[in-house]
Amino acid sequence: MSDLETILTSFKNGTLDLKTARTAIDARFFEDVGHTTIDHDRIRRTGSAEVIYAEHKTPTQVVDAFAALAARGENVLATRVSSEGFRAIAERFTGAEYHTAARLVTLQQKAVDPAATSIAVVTAGTSDLPVAEEAALTAEFYGNPVLRIRDVGVAGIHRLLARADEIRSAQVVIAVAGMEGALPSAVGGLVDKPVIAVPTSVGYGASFGGITALLSMLNSCASGVSVVNIDNGFGAGYLASMINRL
Amino acid sequence: MSDLETILTSFKNGTLDLKTARTAIDARFFEDVGHTTIDHDRIRRTGSAEVIYAEHKTPTQVVDAFAALAARGENVLATRVSSEGFRAIAERFTGAEYHTAARLVTLQQKAVDPAATSIAVVTAGTSDLPVAEEAALTAEFYGNPVLRIRDVGVAGIHRLLARADEIRSAQVVIAVAGMEGALPSAVGGLVDKPVIAVPTSVGYGASFGGITALLSMLNSCASGVSVVNIDNGFGAGYLASMINRL
Amino acid sequence: MSDLETILTSFKNGTLDLKTARTAIDARFFEDVGHTTIDHDRIRRTGSAEVIYAEHKTPTQVVDAFAALAARGENVLATRVSSEGFRAIAERFTGAEYHTAARLVTLQQKAVDPAATSIAVVTAGTSDLPVAEEAALTAEFYGNPVLRIRDVGVAGIHRLLARADEIRSAQVVIAVAGMEGALPSAVGGLVDKPVIAVPTSVGYGASFGGITALLSMLNSCASGVSVVNIDNGFGAGYLASMINRL
Amino acid sequence: MSDLETILTSFKNGTLDLKTARTAIDARFFEDVGHTTIDHDRIRRTGSAEVIYAEHKTPTQVVDAFAALAARGENVLATRVSSEGFRAIAERFTGAEYHTAARLVTLQQKAVDPAATSIAVVTAGTSDLPVAEEAALTAEFYGNPVLRIRDVGVAGIHRLLARADEIRSAQVVIAVAGMEGALPSAVGGLVDKPVIAVPTSVGYGASFGGITALLSMLNSCASGVSVVNIDNGFGAGYLASMINRL
Amino acid sequence: MSDLETILTSFKNGTLDLKTARTAIDARFFEDVGHTTIDHDRIRRTGSAEVIYAEHKTPTQVVDAFAALAARGENVLATRVSSEGFRAIAERFTGAEYHTAARLVTLQQKAVDPAATSIAVVTAGTSDLPVAEEAALTAEFYGNPVLRIRDVGVAGIHRLLARADEIRSAQVVIAVAGMEGALPSAVGGLVDKPVIAVPTSVGYGASFGGITALLSMLNSCASGVSVVNIDNGFGAGYLASMINRL
Amino acid sequence: MSDLETILTSFKNGTLDLKTARTAIDARFFEDVGHTTIDHDRIRRTGSAEVIYAEHKTPTQVVDAFAALAARGENVLATRVSSEGFRAIAERFTGAEYHTAARLVTLQQKAVDPAATSIAVVTAGTSDLPVAEEAALTAEFYGNPVLRIRDVGVAGIHRLLARADEIRSAQVVIAVAGMEGALPSAVGGLVDKPVIAVPTSVGYGASFGGITALLSMLNSCASGVSVVNIDNGFGAGYLASMINRL
Amino acid sequence: MSDLETILTSFKNGTLDLKTARTAIDARFFEDVGHTTIDHDRIRRTGSAEVIYAEHKTPTQVVDAFAALAARGENVLATRVSSEGFRAIAERFTGAEYHTAARLVTLQQKAVDPAATSIAVVTAGTSDLPVAEEAALTAEFYGNPVLRIRDVGVAGIHRLLARADEIRSAQVVIAVAGMEGALPSAVGGLVDKPVIAVPTSVGYGASFGGITALLSMLNSCASGVSVVNIDNGFGAGYLASMINRL
Amino acid sequence: MSDLETILTSFKNGTLDLKTARTAIDARFFEDVGHTTIDHDRIRRTGSAEVIYAEHKTPTQVVDAFAALAARGENVLATRVSSEGFRAIAERFTGAEYHTAARLVTLQQKAVDPAATSIAVVTAGTSDLPVAEEAALTAEFYGNPVLRIRDVGVAGIHRLLARADEIRSAQVVIAVAGMEGALPSAVGGLVDKPVIAVPTSVGYGASFGGITALLSMLNSCASGVSVVNIDNGFGAGYLASMINRL
Repeated sequence: MSDLETILTSFKNGTLDLKTARTAIDARFFEDVGHTTIDHDRIRRTGSAEVIYAEHKTPTQVVDAFAALAARGENVLATRVSSEGFRAIAERFTGAEYHTAARLVTLQQKAVDPAATSIAVVTAGTSDLPVAEEAALTAEFYGNPVLRIRDVGVAGIHRLLARADEIRSAQVVIAVAGMEGALPSAVGGLVDKPVIAVPTSVGYGASFGGITALLSMLNSCASGVSVVNIDNGFGAGYLASMINRL
Repeated sequence: MSDLETILTSFKNGTLDLKTARTAIDARFFEDVGHTTIDHDRIRRTGSAEVIYAEHKTPTQVVDAFAALAARGENVLATRVSSEGFRAIAERFTGAEYHTAARLVTLQQKAVDPAATSIAVVTAGTSDLPVAEEAALTAEFYGNPVLRIRDVGVAGIHRLLARADEIRSAQVVIAVAGMEGALPSAVGGLVDKPVIAVPTSVGYGASFGGITALLSMLNSCASGVSVVNIDNGFGAGYLASMINRL
Repeated sequence: MSDLETILTSFKNGTLDLKTARTAIDARFFEDVGHTTIDHDRIRRTGSAEVIYAEHKTPTQVVDAFAALAARGENVLATRVSSEGFRAIAERFTGAEYHTAARLVTLQQKAVDPAATSIAVVTAGTSDLPVAEEAALTAEFYGNPVLRIRDVGVAGIHRLLARADEIRSAQVVIAVAGMEGALPSAVGGLVDKPVIAVPTSVGYGASFGGITALLSMLNSCASGVSVVNIDNGFGAGYLASMINRL
Repeated sequence: MSDLETILTSFKNGTLDLKTARTAIDARFFEDVGHTTIDHDRIRRTGSAEVIYAEHKTPTQVVDAFAALAARGENVLATRVSSEGFRAIAERFTGAEYHTAARLVTLQQKAVDPAATSIAVVTAGTSDLPVAEEAALTAEFYGNPVLRIRDVGVAGIHRLLARADEIRSAQVVIAVAGMEGALPSAVGGLVDKPVIAVPTSVGYGASFGGITALLSMLNSCASGVSVVNIDNGFGAGYLASMINRL
Repeated sequence: MSDLETILTSFKNGTLDLKTARTAIDARFFEDVGHTTIDHDRIRRTGSAEVIYAEHKTPTQVVDAFAALAARGENVLATRVSSEGFRAIAERFTGAEYHTAARLVTLQQKAVDPAATSIAVVTAGTSDLPVAEEAALTAEFYGNPVLRIRDVGVAGIHRLLARADEIRSAQVVIAVAGMEGALPSAVGGLVDKPVIAVPTSVGYGASFGGITALLSMLNSCASGVSVVNIDNGFGAGYLASMINRL
Repeated sequence: MSDLETILTSFKNGTLDLKTARTAIDARFFEDVGHTTIDHDRIRRTGSAEVIYAEHKTPTQVVDAFAALAARGENVLATRVSSEGFRAIAERFTGAEYHTAARLVTLQQKAVDPAATSIAVVTAGTSDLPVAEEAALTAEFYGNPVLRIRDVGVAGIHRLLARADEIRSAQVVIAVAGMEGALPSAVGGLVDKPVIAVPTSVGYGASFGGITALLSMLNSCASGVSVVNIDNGFGAGYLASMINRL
Repeated sequence: MSDLETILTSFKNGTLDLKTARTAIDARFFEDVGHTTIDHDRIRRTGSAEVIYAEHKTPTQVVDAFAALAARGENVLATRVSSEGFRAIAERFTGAEYHTAARLVTLQQKAVDPAATSIAVVTAGTSDLPVAEEAALTAEFYGNPVLRIRDVGVAGIHRLLARADEIRSAQVVIAVAGMEGALPSAVGGLVDKPVIAVPTSVGYGASFGGITALLSMLNSCASGVSVVNIDNGFGAGYLASMINRL
Repeated sequence: MSDLETILTSFKNGTLDLKTARTAIDARFFEDVGHTTIDHDRIRRTGSAEVIYAEHKTPTQVVDAFAALAARGENVLATRVSSEGFRAIAERFTGAEYHTAARLVTLQQKAVDPAATSIAVVTAGTSDLPVAEEAALTAEFYGNPVLRIRDVGVAGIHRLLARADEIRSAQVVIAVAGMEGALPSAVGGLVDKPVIAVPTSVGYGASFGGITALLSMLNSCASGVSVVNIDNGFGAGYLASMINRL
């Protein structure tokens, strides 16, 4: 909170007048730049810059946000980007990369300090891979080594057990599954690390677009499991990175 | 269909008049005895006598139904019987037995031909035992040897694996679980026998009285799994017996 | 469990060194071949090879999986295959057959031992036929004679009754219905065989894409009925085959 | 509409002044008597007097309403009356009768013109009888002969078929069922009369307090079926009477 | 039931042999003609021929069913027919008529005896008209005069009141509404005739495709109201006709 | 109520005959002009003319309604208008304006008396802007100054706090948010003015098309908050105007 | 914002040191007094003191909170108070009053400035009165005249119309209804004032504890209607007061 | 994996025979001791001993499990213990402590190594304290310093902001809230540490026993937030400890 003290001291010194002091107290936090309110304070508060969620935005809105963040020299991450959206970004940012299955766009402008320990991304089935990749690429964007363990759903439990030691080598585990969503429970019973469960919308009939997997994960009988929204690979990757870098 | 032929032939012979022939065609099937319509034809059609579901019935209604079935010399099974209900039965039928946890009442009046193969009842947790016992006792009522495998939920998957050979020795498997309901998927991946999944209402919060386990089981990624209603141990035991005795 | 004994004995003999013994213990179970983890152990554990669920997969992923299974000389079954998916398969496997309504692809490479008893597939309405065919063709893929009984929904109950003897001639019954899903209850009251109920997404308004039929079937007042997921014809056919071949 | 003409004419004649005319126009409809607004116009509009729904009311409120209606010489009907509620009524109205299972109270003060045709009340199981009785007694309260057909659920369809001719003799059919709620579909396929379906809250697990039966009935594949609220025996009986007396 | 007597008598006379008698007993009811089971008995049982529900059927299936019914000289009604479906029908049946908004096809081949009393179809808003027309045209198909009262939702209650006398002139009322579905309650409070409530899928957000209207109608505080499935104009029209012609 | 008195007096005078008097009593309220029932009385009763909800209507229906209202010289507002719908309107009404994002069409034919105080429209994220604009433009259509505060969701709460004084300057606040819908609670804790919460369908997975935001808002722990339907920007703007002009 | 200026000026003057200045900036807002964080700033921000929601609290917690607020000389309002809770309050505050049906406790310690205009509380049925009284008493607690209109549900719409002028005399209308919740739509079509809709949990079966009424109100086709939580009479009364005193 | 090597080597040496080797391979994992299957391997796999979930168990079952764990010298934790359950424990374990509000029982038999960093437990309202205490006491049981921040819900957001620096001092944050569940979003926007969101069942009406808070938290617009089951304070405390001690 030294900033506030600086402002107060400057005000006392007469360097700042009353009105300027009040504005400065506010301005530590954000700035209104037209249709968007840039949250300058976010890095200080939460440790990382904003990420663009492109789903409900027009290509123009996405590119504008992308440019605003790129201009500050940061690495930029955009999620749920359509191929149209990426074409619009690529016209202005030749270094931007599109990860098709995961629908992520990344722009690396500066090196990230690599984490010392790794994150495991464990996936139940092939159909869950797009969400798993969103998680894995997000974790990599923030500098974490990622260990990918694929196609080890509980209906063939030996596949999972055979890789238990590998999974235990990670500091955090992301478990991605659709249908009955049982993977995080099985993983949670094998490791002594936090498990972030990601339900996917993979399935049909009474899977209800991921609700079944979500409910299953929330009711996991294994300890150390928490859950993010359906298909929220980004959220899992971000949280895993945060834990891995504590 | 020889019965119908007999009636038709008797009618042709003049042994039966028209009205009697029509009544006889109907009477092959059932008889109206006041507040209940006894289904005489049920054993012929489905292979076993009626079972009394006592949940929404008064003690008097339960005892009346019990007596009607006992009078025919059959073994009698009543499910969801309260302790009050059992006391009412026990006053008239000293041989009736009450299985407290499962809330079943059985009356054995004649020997049942034992099945050659057994049924495994696999349970996720201690809290699921009342439902598992309803299934196991029902299977035993119909003459099936039962193998009880308890407390082998997926959060400690090695407990289940260690008993895989035992489970594989059964002809049919009943898998009982609440919370996230993942057990049937794991079992289904281990055996080449039909798995009857029974969701239980054990859990809290987003388990919604068994809905989560039910949905999870319906979406099982393992093949050979089918599902009965929440807490329907009787239904599972009955079906398992039917399959085991094919 | 002789395999494990062989490995242990070879290890004791010195035929296997420690590292190889450990790998061999694992390798009895599965093999990691890139983006897929092939479950070699599945036939031993569950009695049949993997089936390809094509719904959420790219044509390439489907063909790759198809090829991997075909290479082992097995008959191959793929479900929920789009016409694009089939074209991709057909380019490489001229013997592959597409069952349009059911969206199944089958490749028969060796004869299947025919089952001695048959499976009845009973359908409520014409609109339920695609799901019923998925069940029937799956049962036939595994070598079971199938008896198809169509268009016998409960609103014209005499149609069902007239065919009761035929249905009773089967060892297992699959009952397929959408809308109010009452068919399995009626069938379950007529036969002394296991009834596998398949709710379909046929209907409108408060049928909620099959939820009503699903709930109705789970609450069936007939005994011997169990339920699979909405539109899961494959699951029903597979389970019916498993029971029919016990 | 002659009343309005009378008022207008009287007003023109000078028999009524302006204020009185306006009040009289309103007063054709209702009267505010403290905590209740008596709907005098209801008989004219809908053909019968108000019925007391006692569920959420205090005994005092119930008795007050009962007295208000009784004072006008009408026959009085109160539904969902607790035994406490009935005791309060019985203290003041010795002729009031309590139908325990159905929780109805009736007070007959004058003869009802009997209907020429009858109403059939068809019930799936013994546990559904309280709701069925609410329907049957309501129909009788309004002067309709009632034919009670009990315990003819679809799991023993021959019981229902055997009584088809009886059911067809009625002018309107009320079909009462819990669990999977399939009875109205079967009945609707047998008769050429309107079928009023009443779902009951009988069941457990995925019956969800009657929701399954309700949904099943709304999706009936039989024509001529409409549905009332869960456990709404009164509503069915009232509507059946209205149709029967058209 | 004279048919059965005729068969039995003929059998006794020796006119029919045993096998033929059994077949004849069955054949009173239906006939299996390939992919469809024609329900010959339906007119006797329920008073009218089958109606084709075209939603989930292929054009070929629809035309086949249409032809089968037309061949018997009956008037034919098909619901939920797409424009493609109608073109296929029109190629073979030049007299077939398409009611675009309601998506009904009718073919009149013989005169229908007109009903003496009329049916009112009351609609809340312009957007509900397609469903209302399905109901009205169905009622007319069965020979009932129909009174259409449009755009009288409860948010402008005087519009409804002004037409109360008209509505009361009908023998049965169909009330069609989406959104909050309040119209049937208001109508039910105005008339002494059965009200058939039809919820429509008109609305947005928390209208949930008609669920809100459906629930609202099931909970109507007015007596004499029953409900059919969401958007089920046909069902309402059919039932109204059945009641109107009792 | 002077109108009624005038009619009554005229009738007494003989200026009106009986039939005309009755018609005049009705006609104060509405007029049936074919497929629509125009609610003349609406301005008197509710203070403003009808608004056209175009979602489920054909372009022709929309234009007809638009013309009917425009002909009376009123300003006209249509919501949820597709671009096709607008083109149809624009052909006849050159002054009609299309607000693309909000999908509103407005036609200003006369000046509106401006309100003295303003309405704040506070929005959580960029994706919520279309709904927010529907609210803001509706409020402006009825003559209210509107203060737009964008992109101030609770995950960056300082952005909201910094603008608290601005928000407090308004007389009514509309708070628009999707996802977890927390904005109205935060706003409600900052101001002493009514807060109208508008949930939007923005989000994915367990946001369920706005249900989560809706439920969140209904459970707001802040006082002074009420809620309208999902995406109902118009309803919020209309209500805000009504309150602002009291 | 003068407070902040005072602190800053005092700090500049040297009257306040740095630490005290920072504490003072914070302390304008709240104070931590053990298990509760008193929100001193609430009156400034939102115009009224805290209200005690007693539902999930122990009597001790309720009395402590009551005492804390009473000590500041304010009038105190507590909602959802059990009779046990009230006895605990009454021991210490003899002036506290218990409104039994509404379960409110009020303590008036100083006069409230009466509002110039009134609030109408319109109730559908007798069973909804407790919630309506919670709303009415809350409105009176904040000094608003309240007009109570009872028992005017839409099934007897004339009762409502007859009182339309009375309702129109109020500045804000609260409409309270359970079951199908149609009252607010009818009221909203009659008045040009904001309507606050309160769904109640009155009903049975498919009323789902008030969900049906809630959904119905959210989908109201009348403009000017917003909704609060089920049974939230307090919220409606508070908001109505806020609007009435703008 | 040294254990497996030891067994294999011993077997090679002849120290172990074949059968014993196989048993030993299994026995590394668990032991069947009657009605419970003790998971010896759990500490190795997941880092901590089993915890007793007492909700659905009889006092005898709880005490047995408690004794089994206590006998191994570990500290014991039991959750959801009724006062009856505690009395049964206390009879045998005088050192066991009951935390009434949280319903936890703890038995400390040996010192726990204290964590270097702390966990913040932030609570929205007084009614959420029991769940928050379950989380806090669990975290303390595992040796973590806990910082309790109470009564800082978003409706008085300044209370939360004032304590932001304190919250930021923790390594992990648990945010506990019922009703609209907005607290985790606000907290997540303030800190750069993982936030574990715990929805509680506190609320009424449309809070649906915690579903609203759960959904709200799953849809949080803040990054770094994950969710556990409704009222699952234990799960949050356990996971927080796991993260804090990485």
